Amino acid sequence: MSADATVDFRSDNVGPASPEVLAALQAANQATAASYGEDQVSAALNRRFSELFETSVTVFPVATGTAANALALAACVKPYGGIYCYEQAHILTSEGAATEAFSGGARLVPVSGEGFRLQPQVLEAALPAAGSLPRHRPQPNAVSVTQATEYGTVYRLDELEAIGTIARSRGLRLQMDGARFANALVRLGSSPSAMTWRAGVDVLSFGATKNGGLNAEAIVVFDPTLVEDLSYRLRRAGQTWSKMRFAAAGLLAYVEGGLFLRSAARANRLAARLEAGLHVIPAVRVLAPVEANLVFVELPEPVIAALEAAGFLFFRRGSGRIRLVCRFDASEEDIDCLLEAVRRLASPGVSDESARAGD
Amino acid sequence: MSADATVDFRSDNVGPASPEVLAALQAANQATAASYGEDQVSAALNRRFSELFETSVTVFPVATGTAANALALAACVKPYGGIYCYEQAHILTSEGAATEAFSGGARLVPVSGEGFRLQPQVLEAALPAAGSLPRHRPQPNAVSVTQATEYGTVYRLDELEAIGTIARSRGLRLQMDGARFANALVRLGSSPSAMTWRAGVDVLSFGATKNGGLNAEAIVVFDPTLVEDLSYRLRRAGQTWSKMRFAAAGLLAYVEGGLFLRSAARANRLAARLEAGLHVIPAVRVLAPVEANLVFVELPEPVIAALEAAGFLFFRRGSGRIRLVCRFDASEEDIDCLLEAVRRLASPGVSDESARAGD
Amino acid sequence: MSADATVDFRSDNVGPASPEVLAALQAANQATAASYGEDQVSAALNRRFSELFETSVTVFPVATGTAANALALAACVKPYGGIYCYEQAHILTSEGAATEAFSGGARLVPVSGEGFRLQPQVLEAALPAAGSLPRHRPQPNAVSVTQATEYGTVYRLDELEAIGTIARSRGLRLQMDGARFANALVRLGSSPSAMTWRAGVDVLSFGATKNGGLNAEAIVVFDPTLVEDLSYRLRRAGQTWSKMRFAAAGLLAYVEGGLFLRSAARANRLAARLEAGLHVIPAVRVLAPVEANLVFVELPEPVIAALEAAGFLFFRRGSGRIRLVCRFDASEEDIDCLLEAVRRLASPGVSDESARAGD
Amino acid sequence: MSADATVDFRSDNVGPASPEVLAALQAANQATAASYGEDQVSAALNRRFSELFETSVTVFPVATGTAANALALAACVKPYGGIYCYEQAHILTSEGAATEAFSGGARLVPVSGEGFRLQPQVLEAALPAAGSLPRHRPQPNAVSVTQATEYGTVYRLDELEAIGTIARSRGLRLQMDGARFANALVRLGSSPSAMTWRAGVDVLSFGATKNGGLNAEAIVVFDPTLVEDLSYRLRRAGQTWSKMRFAAAGLLAYVEGGLFLRSAARANRLAARLEAGLHVIPAVRVLAPVEANLVFVELPEPVIAALEAAGFLFFRRGSGRIRLVCRFDASEEDIDCLLEAVRRLASPGVSDESARAGD
Repeated sequence: MSADATVDFRSDNVGPASPEVLAALQAANQATAASYGEDQVSAALNRRFSELFETSVTVFPVATGTAANALALAACVKPYGGIYCYEQAHILTSEGAATEAFSGGARLVPVSGEGFRLQPQVLEAALPAAGSLPRHRPQPNAVSVTQATEYGTVYRLDELEAIGTIARSRGLRLQMDGARFANALVRLGSSPSAMTWRAGVDVLSFGATKNGGLNAEAIVVFDPTLVEDLSYRLRRAGQTWSKMRFAAAGLLAYVEGGLFLRSAARANRLAARLEAGLHVIPAVRVLAPVEANLVFVELPEPVIAALEAAGFLFFRRGSGRIRLVCRFDASEEDIDCLLEAVRRLASPGVSDESARAGD
Repeated sequence: MSADATVDFRSDNVGPASPEVLAALQAANQATAASYGEDQVSAALNRRFSELFETSVTVFPVATGTAANALALAACVKPYGGIYCYEQAHILTSEGAATEAFSGGARLVPVSGEGFRLQPQVLEAALPAAGSLPRHRPQPNAVSVTQATEYGTVYRLDELEAIGTIARSRGLRLQMDGARFANALVRLGSSPSAMTWRAGVDVLSFGATKNGGLNAEAIVVFDPTLVEDLSYRLRRAGQTWSKMRFAAAGLLAYVEGGLFLRSAARANRLAARLEAGLHVIPAVRVLAPVEANLVFVELPEPVIAALEAAGFLFFRRGSGRIRLVCRFDASEEDIDCLLEAVRRLASPGVSDESARAGD
Repeated sequence: MSADATVDFRSDNVGPASPEVLAALQAANQATAASYGEDQVSAALNRRFSELFETSVTVFPVATGTAANALALAACVKPYGGIYCYEQAHILTSEGAATEAFSGGARLVPVSGEGFRLQPQVLEAALPAAGSLPRHRPQPNAVSVTQATEYGTVYRLDELEAIGTIARSRGLRLQMDGARFANALVRLGSSPSAMTWRAGVDVLSFGATKNGGLNAEAIVVFDPTLVEDLSYRLRRAGQTWSKMRFAAAGLLAYVEGGLFLRSAARANRLAARLEAGLHVIPAVRVLAPVEANLVFVELPEPVIAALEAAGFLFFRRGSGRIRLVCRFDASEEDIDCLLEAVRRLASPGVSDESARAGD
Repeated sequence: MSADATVDFRSDNVGPASPEVLAALQAANQATAASYGEDQVSAALNRRFSELFETSVTVFPVATGTAANALALAACVKPYGGIYCYEQAHILTSEGAATEAFSGGARLVPVSGEGFRLQPQVLEAALPAAGSLPRHRPQPNAVSVTQATEYGTVYRLDELEAIGTIARSRGLRLQMDGARFANALVRLGSSPSAMTWRAGVDVLSFGATKNGGLNAEAIVVFDPTLVEDLSYRLRRAGQTWSKMRFAAAGLLAYVEGGLFLRSAARANRLAARLEAGLHVIPAVRVLAPVEANLVFVELPEPVIAALEAAGFLFFRRGSGRIRLVCRFDASEEDIDCLLEAVRRLASPGVSDESARAGD
């Protein structure tokens, strides 16, 4: 069966780039241009993003989200600094201690919270009182939030603003991991500015790859005092492409005419459709509110095994739990095909048999 | 005049990507694929390069040459190690101390030499005698050579082999910065294997961007004991693309059917044409043997100023000296146009006038 | 009252050095001697500790316990490594992220446990299965145990051996933070070898300062493959004294004739006396088994405030909780003086009044 | 013969501590005291040094000169910074790349100069013009001078002031490696303030060990904006002793009543005596002006070998060259004994014979 080609819920990353992005690379491939970001396309990228965010920003294209997060945070903290983040933040669980490495040894301080995100009052309680900082503990320097979160939930604007206020009042920088920035934006119906600098965000990892980009993300800097520092850090990190115009062209195409929002809206709709279908199946429990394009569900192990045997692709998240990622390029048929399979396999008496068949 | 679009000798980096590379990206943009290099295109890349190098290699695509050099060297040395290189090596002069950063503080030890490259006997003399290593000096751990060199000269195979023998006899790793690997290869008419692992090279920064690639280079690992280490270092450096298949597809296209060799041969030929033309102009002095695609020349300041005024693009290298880079996509007309201008401007009595016109 | 000079339970560190240690420094201050540890006293230190540990060891004196732990661990791990430790380990809570800094960004992975220490089965469960190591997570490289623990409890030999077996079976190094090594030794009545390398410990931070030493601790290396690496790391960390013989002389005096064991036994006895007295006071709750020289107790806030007001010195450990450290140089009178005060202040009706008096 | 005990010219470090320093440690060994520098002796150290330097300073005792230099410089620079120093500076040749490690990868930029020190005009020429800083080169952040220099020469005050002016005008920090600070001070007859902050020095490595101290140096901070940063860096570097009062007491004794100046004056006088005696021996060439306590001489290899054979201790500095260090605790007899031996061995006809005897 052809399931492994088309019914793939493993990750946003397994999908293609948007055709518009590839077309932009093609279009950029003419004449010569200054290297290392001194070209006209890179200048246009800065202008375009400054319009998009309704303030003057500096944009640094980088290869990956890990680079974006770790280098942005490195510019925000001292080597002996502490970075407060949700206990399941991607920077803590999935980036190979990149932030520790690029910062020269800063400490990520995990903070628990409901809704799979930092809660302002919990963050506040976790921060040591001003003036009481012992030298043997990392000095609080920054807060990092992921929007949308690693569990597909979304911070409300007032939550972000409250976190921003806490950060500002204590002299901490606020960094946003926006690997799924567009998905959060369309969920909230918010403007990019409201969800970032107006709420106190100093620097943003603007994700594109998960939503149709092609191997380029962007660090968007709102606080101009970080720009010089970052420009050096990026160059030495091997994140400053000599043919920068290609990365800039791809990112321009990604936002042009709201492409990134349309793609994210589509992914979110597919996830909502999936959640609605799963919700009514008794054997299935949805584990987190579906506010972006991720669906975490608990279901009987035999059903999981049977789905795998049937060719559906997805990742496990511990025993009896899986993550289903809805990509912008997936189809309603993909969703319905999975729903039908779950419905069938999770019916009483069926799952045991299927599990055996899957052995 | 249209010179700034077409008569551009600034750098290899200002040029386009080969159409074949872009076509390969397009072709890779279908269906889904495993992320982080677990896909089929990445597997094909390893197979293809293993054929090319006539031995089993592991290939890690990375964003830039700086990343390739610094991370490869970091895997070769201790944090307290010393890396011996030519005193004008790119890793020393132009990579923002990336190697020091990624290695955790290793020291680059500059070694002088004729022909703009390390000479085996000079290297040998610079290395401290075995068993005499004081703890207050960096421990010699690696040697780095650039092939072709930053000055467009090329190591002979016997030179590389002699350096490889020195390295091996002292337990040092040998890394090659191959930003212009293809240019050296066609110059020597050598096989990739003869110029690398057969001569003692443990790990290669395989350059593509300067010769038609698109923002992806490759670390080619000959010593299998470096692979596991590098895989972790790359991930934490933000150099492991989630949509790795695109980088792999571009690199495959770059070598497919010998494209990279044809492109480099063309660039080398243009440089030879330029050198031949400049050589006979009395006011011009060619500063380094032209063995790849770089031409360094000394000429009167007024001539340089006049060339700039006329719209020719190039970089200065100190007073009265310029670097002219011949790209694979340049034309014989570009070369001849420049030669004609130099001839005219360097004629007695002309240069002064032109210089004034250029003010 | 004179309490702040004599009734001081703040820390082991507030106390003096043993007179024998100072006398040894005086004795070492004659003639000249080779620098950086090449002297005869340093050679004697290696011999003496090799006898003490019943195996050939290399001893590196260093300035502090933080240096000992962080540098020993840095030699045990890759920069992208993970170090498994108890969730309240000193290296995690109180050393300013020194281990992260010296290792180049390794991650400390906190593991919960009963008895304020790592439990073998919990550690085992926390370690990812062999062969399943994803690149985006730190690679397990080492385990660190504190003996005696930060809470004054002591690992049994069979617990250490079980942890050692787990470490060895997975290729992990085992480091021991022995800030209170002597206290654990006398508690167990064990030999130094049984509590270290025979149980699988590769490298030990041999504490002295807390127990009568004078600003010198020692890294004791059991695994000879770590020696060369550490010798470089220490020199560049500024931890290799030029006049090393003084540090070596102090450490020799510290163990000579079992001085360190007598001092620790005395401190442990004082703690036992304190615990016995506190145990029978109804308002007091002892929070951890008293197996070394630390006593953690919970008591009413007004009592704590009244003790502070009366001049007793100690540190708080959150609301209603304090830590009382019994030093080798303290006296039975100190203990009894505190016990009497607690008894009096914790009697019904007294504490409220005292608290007011303390305002 | 007893030469190896008494006629030892190897290094300042092979000598003893001043008796006053040891007596101070003894005196500090009573009662209890707050740890980590919060004690009264440490407070007194800050007051005493503030008087000595005629301005409010913060003093951080550290274990070694390497720690003092590397951590002070780390606080002065960005991880991507460049530190300009004399090409034979101790930080470059003899500290195991500690500065690179603690700074997170900064680059030491060697600058040549006459008199074995930085010359203002050469430094100025070496610094890139303001506003022309490319991202691929380390950003100039600091200048480091050694006073007295590694070759026993001494910067004049006007030289230091000129360097200070250059540093200030370009926004660079100025750090002084004062491993032989006292020797320079007595040579110039200058005040500590004139030789440091009044000349533009921001932070000083105040050496004591080479001149009678006991395994403690001091970072003296003139620029208060560096204090907070350093306090964190030192703690995580394992350079903050818990029993700090002992280090503070030793440093106080070192300066009390001008002890450090008397010791340095004596060492300088011995070196002058040695130089005067060597100067008139035809076979001997003094290689550097003798302005502190170091004498570098060139003499025939057979004479060197004969001196070694006779039991004199010293270090070689390449073929036919040796360094003779005059310690504060050496005697006129030591000097005269060496002079006599050189005179005898360097006489025509004698050296050949002695060399054979020494085989």
